[in-house]
Amino acid sequence: MSETHALASYVVDGRLDDTPNDVRHEARRALVNFMGCALGGSADPAVDIAIRALGPYSGPSTARVLGRVERLDPLHASLMNGISSHVHDYDDTTPKNYSHPTSPVASALFAYASVHPLSGRQLVEAFILAFEAESRVANAVYPSHYDVGWHITGTSGVFGAATGIGKLLGLSVQQMVWAIGLAATQAAGLREMFGSMGKAFHPGRSAQNGYVAALLARDGFTAGERGIEGPRGFAAVQAARFDLSKITARLGLDFDLRANTYKPYPCGIVNHPAIDGAIEIFRAHHPDPQAIAAVRLRVAPLVLDLCNQQNITRGLQGKFSVYHGAAVGLVRGKAGLQEYTDDAVNDPRVKRVRERTTAVGDPSITEDQAHIEVALADGRTLTQFVAQSTGNLQKPLTDRQLDAKFRDQAVLALPAEQVDRALDLTWRIDELDDVGELIDAAIPAAQAVQR
Amino acid sequence: MSETHALASYVVDGRLDDTPNDVRHEARRALVNFMGCALGGSADPAVDIAIRALGPYSGPSTARVLGRVERLDPLHASLMNGISSHVHDYDDTTPKNYSHPTSPVASALFAYASVHPLSGRQLVEAFILAFEAESRVANAVYPSHYDVGWHITGTSGVFGAATGIGKLLGLSVQQMVWAIGLAATQAAGLREMFGSMGKAFHPGRSAQNGYVAALLARDGFTAGERGIEGPRGFAAVQAARFDLSKITARLGLDFDLRANTYKPYPCGIVNHPAIDGAIEIFRAHHPDPQAIAAVRLRVAPLVLDLCNQQNITRGLQGKFSVYHGAAVGLVRGKAGLQEYTDDAVNDPRVKRVRERTTAVGDPSITEDQAHIEVALADGRTLTQFVAQSTGNLQKPLTDRQLDAKFRDQAVLALPAEQVDRALDLTWRIDELDDVGELIDAAIPAAQAVQR
Repeated sequence: MSETHALASYVVDGRLDDTPNDVRHEARRALVNFMGCALGGSADPAVDIAIRALGPYSGPSTARVLGRVERLDPLHASLMNGISSHVHDYDDTTPKNYSHPTSPVASALFAYASVHPLSGRQLVEAFILAFEAESRVANAVYPSHYDVGWHITGTSGVFGAATGIGKLLGLSVQQMVWAIGLAATQAAGLREMFGSMGKAFHPGRSAQNGYVAALLARDGFTAGERGIEGPRGFAAVQAARFDLSKITARLGLDFDLRANTYKPYPCGIVNHPAIDGAIEIFRAHHPDPQAIAAVRLRVAPLVLDLCNQQNITRGLQGKFSVYHGAAVGLVRGKAGLQEYTDDAVNDPRVKRVRERTTAVGDPSITEDQAHIEVALADGRTLTQFVAQSTGNLQKPLTDRQLDAKFRDQAVLALPAEQVDRALDLTWRIDELDDVGELIDAAIPAAQAVQR
Repeated sequence: MSETHALASYVVDGRLDDTPNDVRHEARRALVNFMGCALGGSADPAVDIAIRALGPYSGPSTARVLGRVERLDPLHASLMNGISSHVHDYDDTTPKNYSHPTSPVASALFAYASVHPLSGRQLVEAFILAFEAESRVANAVYPSHYDVGWHITGTSGVFGAATGIGKLLGLSVQQMVWAIGLAATQAAGLREMFGSMGKAFHPGRSAQNGYVAALLARDGFTAGERGIEGPRGFAAVQAARFDLSKITARLGLDFDLRANTYKPYPCGIVNHPAIDGAIEIFRAHHPDPQAIAAVRLRVAPLVLDLCNQQNITRGLQGKFSVYHGAAVGLVRGKAGLQEYTDDAVNDPRVKRVRERTTAVGDPSITEDQAHIEVALADGRTLTQFVAQSTGNLQKPLTDRQLDAKFRDQAVLALPAEQVDRALDLTWRIDELDDVGELIDAAIPAAQAVQR
């Protein structure tokens, strides 16, 4: 059986009841993390602009955009959910292929669920299967595909959205094969967009394009039958080297959700160990920022390749400054969204510590590690070695850490009284008879309407 | 100046008055050919299905689809125009890069013109500039981009639609740079779709996606500034070898419209010399199909790369079968739309000859040439060498041949009395104060409404 047919059959035939409990719990964790990111990013200018530019072209405004008052058609709602959930670079990552896998799938599924009655079990079932399909396509072409310049979140994401919506539409295997083909032939997204709104456009457009692929396939719009593995298909065209066996090996037995990770801080992941160390010192010693004479970091050499910006004035620059990460950890004891605003970067207490921070690249330090030494004015020295950074596969965010992250993001979109309700409902999503209950909780209250 | 900026400035600053008369006439020829193709393909099942599947998601139905009674928003109308104008594989081709350049651009421009007052001069100006931008992007990456499996009509087409709509929207250079970036990051379309509806989806989606790129850019949705030439931009990611100098060399002085060609047969252009030869043998000898023992083709090697399908059952597959092209030429003496239906592919007389046809790739044969040898049951052999295929640059279709082609197609969509009116208005497009006059003529009469 071809890889395209195998994936199509897997998604068509897959059942939540056959999914191990740990995978189902990881799905809930991924959705909690996604929902927080979508809410946290929903007020970003990229979303404002996209709604302003494309809203006039929306179809019947039956669908909800997470965290927003506007109504759009579900295709445009998929796009907006995808932009908002990725725009802060805070969504999930799988180290198997460095894609951000949940956004393209969940953005489309929640848009669908806002216009069609759908149980939480149905959504979670489609999510688990589509996440797996998407991630396996990415695994097959990683790393050469990513290395040459494809934003793998965009290119693999459209497979996730197409199969996920296809599952909810009840496509046959033949229709799912076409949906995968129509996904393959829309796979796009260039890393050249990094640093612009174009980056967050990728998961959004993938969600929307995958949704379109599934709708077309349902009505019999044909596509090449070997969209993934054909000689002019996705793998051969978009990767110099690929391994199709990764698509089918132990399909239905292994689940890439088990290799999903969640960021504790909305910044370049290589900064995370230094931030961990700074926060640990803050918690243990609560040093007076005015009393910090010097901060000395020893980090993996890659950190200084990527995040060596020290004289900075804008929040976005802070995401690429290991000095800023250490400074906010020491001064504020956290590194959430509020630590990566322009205000935070220009906070005099943060700025003072950042300017007293130095860093040395040390080949004996891995990318999951950091050593931090804080010299105080009274002559004391505080040191901390981080052996595993928070959020990696060996030290995953706990469910309670995901709660805290969610709250930090959701308050940007929702009244305080709705935040805990949205969080609770997301954790309990597979108990919900209608996902609309959760979606209503994820829209600012005055606008949430029971359907 | 970077290539992206140079193209953006070219389109923003370009003026119809600075365009040579022969280029303006070639633009009219391209638009006549496009309009005929859009009308001829407008009743194809691919268009029916796309409208059925996506119509419910259309925004306010203000725009017209050429040849159709339905109204959609202009983004969806762009998609449908692109599908209809390419679905018969009958639209134009530039041998410089083997794209079908008019469909992605004109599909968007006519959708735009159906909702905004627009003079024929404005449309032709935008068309000429956007055609040039699109074709130069394609030139820069051809042939390695095409050879690996990209459908260059889809990938370069989105640049054409983005710059064409961007021109009509009056984008600044900065906005046009973003529009080009958002086009680059949506460039997609795999040759694996050939033989399915997915192929015609490419110019349609390019038209729609380019339109979206221009709308987003106008409202300030940012993109990478070097979408074409950046280290992770379109050229580097989507072509093993590329030559960026082809984008800027003699920009504003040379026009690729001069290298545009129009197909006499609705199938893969590389099949055309073999069809010419078969038709010439038919005309000279009228061989009895039952008496044909074997047909031996010598063709350019590319023909077998693209059109090597022999065991076929569907009309769409016939378009990519040099064997089918030779068979209908020999059996029916023509290769019009009726020779690429499912019925024609399964016509026992055609099938019999097709199954007796073999082809050899011969590097001494150019892509404009073919040698055909027909062995008859009585031992006679009929041979024909085609030195220049009909419709190529050395033997272009005349304006009157374009008229005849237009009429053959347009009758599939329009009442007879409207066909000549639509043809006449297309030839005179740059005299029209409102392109809406032409669009009304291109909608079946009972439905055409003066706006």
